[in-house]
Amino acid sequence: MRDELISALAAGLPEDTLVTDPDVMASYARDMASFSPAGAPAVVVLPRTVEQVRHVMRTATALRVPVVPQGARTGLSGAANAVDGCVVLSLTRMDRILEIDPVERIAVAEPGVVNAVLSRAVAERGLYYPPDPSSWEQCTLGGNIGTGAGGLCCVKYGVTAEYVLGLDVVLADGRLLRTGRRTAKGVAGYDLTRLFVGSEGTLGIVVKAVVALRPAPPRQLALVAEFGSAAAASDAICRIMESGRTPSLLELMDGTTVRAVNAMARMGLPESTEALLLAAFDTADPAADLAAVGAVCEAAGATEVVPAADAAESEMLLQARRLSLTALERVSTATMIDDVCVPRGRLGDMLDGVAAIAKKYDLTIGVCAHAGDGNTHPVVCFDARDEDETRRARESFDEIMELGLGLGGTITGEHGVGLLKKDWLARELGPTAVELQRGVKAVFDPLGLLNPGKVF
Amino acid sequence: MRDELISALAAGLPEDTLVTDPDVMASYARDMASFSPAGAPAVVVLPRTVEQVRHVMRTATALRVPVVPQGARTGLSGAANAVDGCVVLSLTRMDRILEIDPVERIAVAEPGVVNAVLSRAVAERGLYYPPDPSSWEQCTLGGNIGTGAGGLCCVKYGVTAEYVLGLDVVLADGRLLRTGRRTAKGVAGYDLTRLFVGSEGTLGIVVKAVVALRPAPPRQLALVAEFGSAAAASDAICRIMESGRTPSLLELMDGTTVRAVNAMARMGLPESTEALLLAAFDTADPAADLAAVGAVCEAAGATEVVPAADAAESEMLLQARRLSLTALERVSTATMIDDVCVPRGRLGDMLDGVAAIAKKYDLTIGVCAHAGDGNTHPVVCFDARDEDETRRARESFDEIMELGLGLGGTITGEHGVGLLKKDWLARELGPTAVELQRGVKAVFDPLGLLNPGKVF
Repeated sequence: MRDELISALAAGLPEDTLVTDPDVMASYARDMASFSPAGAPAVVVLPRTVEQVRHVMRTATALRVPVVPQGARTGLSGAANAVDGCVVLSLTRMDRILEIDPVERIAVAEPGVVNAVLSRAVAERGLYYPPDPSSWEQCTLGGNIGTGAGGLCCVKYGVTAEYVLGLDVVLADGRLLRTGRRTAKGVAGYDLTRLFVGSEGTLGIVVKAVVALRPAPPRQLALVAEFGSAAAASDAICRIMESGRTPSLLELMDGTTVRAVNAMARMGLPESTEALLLAAFDTADPAADLAAVGAVCEAAGATEVVPAADAAESEMLLQARRLSLTALERVSTATMIDDVCVPRGRLGDMLDGVAAIAKKYDLTIGVCAHAGDGNTHPVVCFDARDEDETRRARESFDEIMELGLGLGGTITGEHGVGLLKKDWLARELGPTAVELQRGVKAVFDPLGLLNPGKVF
Repeated sequence: MRDELISALAAGLPEDTLVTDPDVMASYARDMASFSPAGAPAVVVLPRTVEQVRHVMRTATALRVPVVPQGARTGLSGAANAVDGCVVLSLTRMDRILEIDPVERIAVAEPGVVNAVLSRAVAERGLYYPPDPSSWEQCTLGGNIGTGAGGLCCVKYGVTAEYVLGLDVVLADGRLLRTGRRTAKGVAGYDLTRLFVGSEGTLGIVVKAVVALRPAPPRQLALVAEFGSAAAASDAICRIMESGRTPSLLELMDGTTVRAVNAMARMGLPESTEALLLAAFDTADPAADLAAVGAVCEAAGATEVVPAADAAESEMLLQARRLSLTALERVSTATMIDDVCVPRGRLGDMLDGVAAIAKKYDLTIGVCAHAGDGNTHPVVCFDARDEDETRRARESFDEIMELGLGLGGTITGEHGVGLLKKDWLARELGPTAVELQRGVKAVFDPLGLLNPGKVF
C-alpha cells in the first residue's frame, strides 16, 4: 500500500520533493501543541508548483489516503499533526511573493512565504501587512490563513481574515478552485474565501493568496503601566477602549509572566507588579495619545506609568512582551497555551478566574494577553515527567476554556481548534452549528481525506 | 393549498402579522431592480419575534412552500422579488436596537432596523457604524447583510462583511442557529457568519446581528476636482491611492451624471467637465490631506480643484453625489444600474469602455462610482415604452458586465446577484465554484425553499 502510494506520487513529482526517510519524516510529525497525538506519515511531500499539489491530491483521492497540509508547524493546537499512513503535504517550498501592487494595495503570494518575509517585502514598498503572530519570523502565510492567525496588531488592524481577498485552492480531488477577487470589493456568490480562512486544512489546499495591504503607518510609540491587580489593569483597558482611542497594540503581562521574563532576560521589569500594561500608538501624534492613555491608566489605579522616550525604547518594551512565552516555557519542562477570548468587560473576571484555577491545581499559570481584544493566553507550566502534575495541567487547561465560555467568550481567539480543543468546539457551537459545519466539510471533502480528525 | 398555508401560519401568529389582501401583497412583490420577474406571493408575513419567524419556517418546511425574505426592498438585483405562491417574509417589524456597547465596540440589533437609525443611535454614543449604502435612510441591517452592502465609506472603512461579528439565524426547518461571537476575535470552527453575509436570503433568515463599531471619526472635509477626461480622473485616483493616503471617500461622477444633477437640482456643477472627483478626509488634519490630494489631482491634469471651506460646504458637495442616481432616473422613464468593480488601475479602461458601449447602443449611460474602490455604477437610461430601446438597454447592461470581467473585475461590488446577474455569476465563478456553492446551499436548505431561483 505504502509502496503503491509512493510510486504513484513519484510518477508525477521530482525526486527531491519526496521524503521517505523515517527520521526526517519524524521531524514533520507534529506542530508545537502539547497533549496532541501525532501519527507516522507514510510520506512527506514538498511540492514547488500548483500542478505538483494537484498531482498529490489526485493520487491521494485515487488511493483514499489522508493528506495533512503543513506550513511551518508553529501551530499551537495540533492541527498540523500527522495521522498514521498520511501524506504530509508541506507547502514551505512554495514561498514566492508573486506581486506587490501599491495602487491596488494588494500582494499575491504562495502559501509557504514566511509572514516576516512578506511583511518586510511590502514595507519596502511603503505598505503594511498587519497580521503579526508571535511566530511571525517562522510561520507561513498559508498557516496563518489555515488557523486564522492574529497577533499584536489586531486591536487596531484586525485578524488574518480581514486581509484575505482571494485564494487559489486545490480541492481534495485535485481540481483547482479560485475564490474571491483582486478588487477592493466583491459580493459575487457565497464568500468561500472566508470559509477557507481558519478551516485548518480541512477543506482544501491553499496554493495562492491575494491579500489586502495598508499604507505603512508611522512608527509606533509605546508606554508601560504598572498595576497592583489584574482587575485594575482590566478596568484601564475598558476605559481606554471606551475613550474612543484605538492603540496599535494593547497588551498585558501578569506578575508571573513579568517575573519569568526578568528571570530569563534580566530586563529589569518591576518584580512587584501584578499586571503590566503595554500600549502603543502609530497615529499622527502618538505622544498625545499616550499621554491621554497614561492619564486613563492612572485614574484606573496604575502605580506607575512610563512612556517610552523614542521608538527604540518602545521596541525594547515590546521585546519583553514578545519574550513572554519563551520565558514561561523555562518555568518547567512543558507548557500548554490557552487562547480564550472574552468580552473586554470580562477580562478582569477571566484573569482572576485563571489565578484561582492555578491555585486550585497548584500550578504556575502565567497570563500574557492581547488585552485590547480580550484575547488571553494563559500558559500552564508543568513538569511533563510528573504524571500527576501533567494530569492537573490538562485539567486546568480545560477549566480555563470552561471559564472563558462562561464569561461569554470563545475557546480560541486566534490559534484554532486542531486536536487540542476538538471536544470543546461542540460545547461552544452547539449541535446545530456542528452539524452544518460537518455538512460543509462533506461538500468540499466528501471522502474525508483532508486533515482528518481535526477541528471536529 | 393556499388556505391550508394561511391557516397553518395563522395558528402560530398574531392576526396583524398576516397580509392576504392582493393589492397590499402586490406592494411586496419586488425590489428596485429592472428586468427582474416577480411572482405573486400567497401571503405576506410581518413577524415581530424570533419565535414567529421560526413558526413561519416550520410551516413552510412542513408544507414545502418557498419563502422570500425581505427588508426594505431597496435592492437593485431582484433578490427580494416574490415567487408565485411564496411566503414573503418581511423582517421590517423586527427593528429593535438591543444593545450598544462602547467598551466592546459592538451593537446588537434586529434585522429590520434601518441603517440610518442604527448609525444615528451609535453616533449618539460617540461610535460609528460605517456601511452607508445610498439607500441608507430606507434600507435595513438585514438587507445590508443579505446583499453585502457597501457605500461611500468603503474606500477607508470596508464593506458590511467587515462589521458582522455574529448572527442569530432561523434555518429553513425552523431551527435556530447562532454563529460567530461578540468578542473582538474568534476562530472556533468554520466562519459561517461570513457565509451568510451576501447570501441574499438563500441560506437562512437572519433574526439578530452583532455588528462591530468604530469610534466616531472627526467630521470629514471634502474637495472637488474637475477633469477633462475620465482617463485623467482615473489616473488621479490611482496616484492618490499609491500616495499612501486613504480618503474617507473618493467618488467620481462622469459628465453625463454631472449634467443630470444640474438639470434636476441646479447645483451649478461645471457643465463642461467630463469627470468630477470628490475626495474627503476624516483625519486629524483633513486640510493638509486635501491639499496633498489636490496637488496630485493637478499633477494628473485636473482643470480645477476646489476644496470645501467647511464641513457644511463639504456636505453640499456630497449631496450632489448622492443625487446622482435620482438625477439619472429623470433622463428617461427607466434605468438599469450596473455594479461592476474593477482593479483601480483599470478604472480608466472601464469608463472609456462604458462610453463606447453607450455610443454603440445609442443610449445615455451615466457613470457614478465609488472610484477609490474601482466600484462603478454605470446607469443605463432608457424608455421602457420603447421595445427596441429596452432591448438595447438590457444588452448594454450585460456588455458592461462582460467589459468588467475582461478587465479583471467582478459583476457585483456591493449590490449582489439576485435575478439580474444570475447568468453572469457562473461566467465569473466558473463551474467548480458554482458546484461547491450549490453544495453549500443544499447543506443549509436541502428542500430549496429559501429564496429559490436567486443567485444561481
